Amino acid sequence: MSKDKQFVTEITPQSEDFSRWYIDVIKKAELMDYSPVRGCIVFRPEGYELWENIQRELDARFKETGHRNAYFPLFIPESFFQKEKEHVEGFNPELPWVTEAAGEVLEERLAIRPTSETMIGHMYAKWIQSYRDLPLLINQWANVVRWEKRTLPFLRTSEFLWQEGHTAHETEEEARQETMQMLEIYQNFVEDFLAIPVIVGQKTPSEKFAGAVDTYSIEAMMKDGRAVQAGTSHYLGTNFAVAFDIKYLDRENTLQFAHTTSWGVSTRLIGALIMVHGDDRGLALPPKVAPTQVIMIPIGPAKTRDQVVGRVDELYAELKKAGIRVRVDDRSDVSPGWKFNEYEMRGVPVRLELGPRDMENGQVVLVSRITGEKRIVQQANLLEEIQKLLDDTQQSMYEKAKLFREDNFKSVDTLDEMKALLEEKRGFVEAGWCGSAACEKQVKEETGATSRNIPFAPTLHKENCLVCGEKAVHTVVFARAY
Amino acid sequence: MSKDKQFVTEITPQSEDFSRWYIDVIKKAELMDYSPVRGCIVFRPEGYELWENIQRELDARFKETGHRNAYFPLFIPESFFQKEKEHVEGFNPELPWVTEAAGEVLEERLAIRPTSETMIGHMYAKWIQSYRDLPLLINQWANVVRWEKRTLPFLRTSEFLWQEGHTAHETEEEARQETMQMLEIYQNFVEDFLAIPVIVGQKTPSEKFAGAVDTYSIEAMMKDGRAVQAGTSHYLGTNFAVAFDIKYLDRENTLQFAHTTSWGVSTRLIGALIMVHGDDRGLALPPKVAPTQVIMIPIGPAKTRDQVVGRVDELYAELKKAGIRVRVDDRSDVSPGWKFNEYEMRGVPVRLELGPRDMENGQVVLVSRITGEKRIVQQANLLEEIQKLLDDTQQSMYEKAKLFREDNFKSVDTLDEMKALLEEKRGFVEAGWCGSAACEKQVKEETGATSRNIPFAPTLHKENCLVCGEKAVHTVVFARAY
Repeated sequence: MSKDKQFVTEITPQSEDFSRWYIDVIKKAELMDYSPVRGCIVFRPEGYELWENIQRELDARFKETGHRNAYFPLFIPESFFQKEKEHVEGFNPELPWVTEAAGEVLEERLAIRPTSETMIGHMYAKWIQSYRDLPLLINQWANVVRWEKRTLPFLRTSEFLWQEGHTAHETEEEARQETMQMLEIYQNFVEDFLAIPVIVGQKTPSEKFAGAVDTYSIEAMMKDGRAVQAGTSHYLGTNFAVAFDIKYLDRENTLQFAHTTSWGVSTRLIGALIMVHGDDRGLALPPKVAPTQVIMIPIGPAKTRDQVVGRVDELYAELKKAGIRVRVDDRSDVSPGWKFNEYEMRGVPVRLELGPRDMENGQVVLVSRITGEKRIVQQANLLEEIQKLLDDTQQSMYEKAKLFREDNFKSVDTLDEMKALLEEKRGFVEAGWCGSAACEKQVKEETGATSRNIPFAPTLHKENCLVCGEKAVHTVVFARAY
Repeated sequence: MSKDKQFVTEITPQSEDFSRWYIDVIKKAELMDYSPVRGCIVFRPEGYELWENIQRELDARFKETGHRNAYFPLFIPESFFQKEKEHVEGFNPELPWVTEAAGEVLEERLAIRPTSETMIGHMYAKWIQSYRDLPLLINQWANVVRWEKRTLPFLRTSEFLWQEGHTAHETEEEARQETMQMLEIYQNFVEDFLAIPVIVGQKTPSEKFAGAVDTYSIEAMMKDGRAVQAGTSHYLGTNFAVAFDIKYLDRENTLQFAHTTSWGVSTRLIGALIMVHGDDRGLALPPKVAPTQVIMIPIGPAKTRDQVVGRVDELYAELKKAGIRVRVDDRSDVSPGWKFNEYEMRGVPVRLELGPRDMENGQVVLVSRITGEKRIVQQANLLEEIQKLLDDTQQSMYEKAKLFREDNFKSVDTLDEMKALLEEKRGFVEAGWCGSAACEKQVKEETGATSRNIPFAPTLHKENCLVCGEKAVHTVVFARAY
């Protein structure tokens, strides 16, 4: 996009229309563009780089815990979906089908994978013979497709990118440990790396993955108070092992079904990142995931320009060598003020300014994108000061998001209370629940909020179901969700 | 796979049946498995790790030269293929089609991408307005599908993984420079990192990419004398710019069509890696791409075992810290001899043995997978010695492959000479060519060899066409190809 066009789009304020704000920001910051295929977006370099950083970090965490990557086919034969009853019911309505190839009609239709439990189950049955082959710990980075009716860039697109882990174990206990370990990795990653606080818990039966015994999730609150399911981890029991015949000879030489798990996060994390941290000036990226952590802008009159740019380049080399993701914008055809706005809109966490007076004093000015705080620091301590400001920024972004969530999180006792609350205020609502699907459904119908999960650490244990008033078996977090 | 089963498959000797040798090796080393979808394979962790290493290295080289990654949709509307005449003719016979999704018949069929010039051309037309938007340098890592009749794991599969670079430029000169730059990056990468010597040159018109003005390639010789096209770089002229309306306002404020390029390498590099370096004992991996560079095996009787394993673990920590990709196999239920065979079969470049006598002498034994050479080195110099042996191994693998190619590379003057040569001997044949498609076709029909490319550095300039005897305009390398 030529820079003349950058000012054409103004960003709608969040308070005016949050959805328009979101689309304005992701278009203006060039994170994505619409494609000519319904529901599919283009991940432009600025957006894809966020995914690359997420991938690199998560991949390292998966490998540290003994997982290895593999790649399985995009196409899944129709008959595979029939093998697990809940699975086919869950995914059939969303599948695109390849019916012809190379000029011929296929004997069996091929689905484009919406997830790979079936294909991987089929292969695991071939690879697993004995307890010695277990645990089998594999992850796949791939594109998947779910033909969605209503789409929203990053958060719900027909094609998206994700990782799907698939593991097989000797015992239920081991498989459940894996399920919880991966949930914890997701929590730590999203909180530590993306600075997004999450609520960790178990999905209710009506919200669990099609084919799972138990589904666990991490749920994040966006700035409009709605929820994004940021990651899920499933204990699949022996459901897929029975469907695909994944059996092993145990230590007593008896044939047993393996216990399997699956777990995934997707490019919807990019959407969450934007909706949690962004503001009316545009994107705000936590330093750990930001493609550019520091933007360096030389300032001052033309006569000192060469000298200032020379010094900026020296400092740039120093920071880059230390592993800081840093860029210089030394263009002379746009003003410093224009650049300040531009990189604030793009969410770069720290701006470094250097002018002739700073040169004289051996200092630079650092400005935080989030707090607006200015720090005048000595060039001699630059690396240390930058690292400190990046750390502080990461930390304060997490805390700010957490405070926001606390401000918009309420406990209620009755459905009426919940309806009244959600009419006047956005946010998450915690309430007691008797465990019946009917009560859960009634909440959804009357408030538009769905059960997000049964948190491991509810703020209060509620005694009664918010709908029927019977004894509560769980405390549930409800919210309107993306 | 449980280890009891490892010895079930014997590897067919290369001299007996090269194709069976290839399949035996990739199955036994667990690089891949067949999938239930025709022509699609599963990349198992041992195979996928090779791709991860290739990706990491190439990606760094692309970024160093100013390219950024993005991601475009998997689906391409049928109408897009109609826009570039040669392109549609080239790819139509291989396309799979999505005709239904979410229970409805689509209004327009969607192809699964065989390559993305059309989709990316469409998007570039939106993004490029002015010369200030150029050059646009984007790469995509993705899966692509070409519905192949005859398939061979890694070398030709219906779905495969690749990268496709797509760039747009102001002038022909700049676009041609980019085309050559990427070809050079491919050459350097394949020769330096994969230790595979290549012949660099231009494709003849009948072998060029569908829609390109000029196609350039790097061609490698397998151990059966057949060729693998290991990478291609295309100058597309304004063909796709005209088809998709990629226009920009130039420095004189006149609308111009952009000049575009595209370039790619794929998971077929894994196949080439195996067929160039493997031998009757199995895989042989160049150290730079090998997932495990050094396998450490403690040896000796049970009574000294703990002590030996303790020392191995210390040395392991030292090597790992220095960035060597190292693993220890200290299992006591399989013999050292079994392990030696196992890791030779898996192609690990260097084996380190440590026994009680080595302990006493403060030494270890290093064995090279390729040459079989043993080096007894002091533990005090271990890192340095390992690095030296890895470097030597990388170098000698390249030289060995180059010698093999030279031994199987001949110049001929006539088609009869070529036929006689290819009947008794495998390899590449260099000959003069008049430039006519008819003569090229006759070579193919009578020998099964196709023109690989017009090398930039032929060994000899031939005066006459090998078929018609007319004046040669090019020297061409011919070979039977995968």
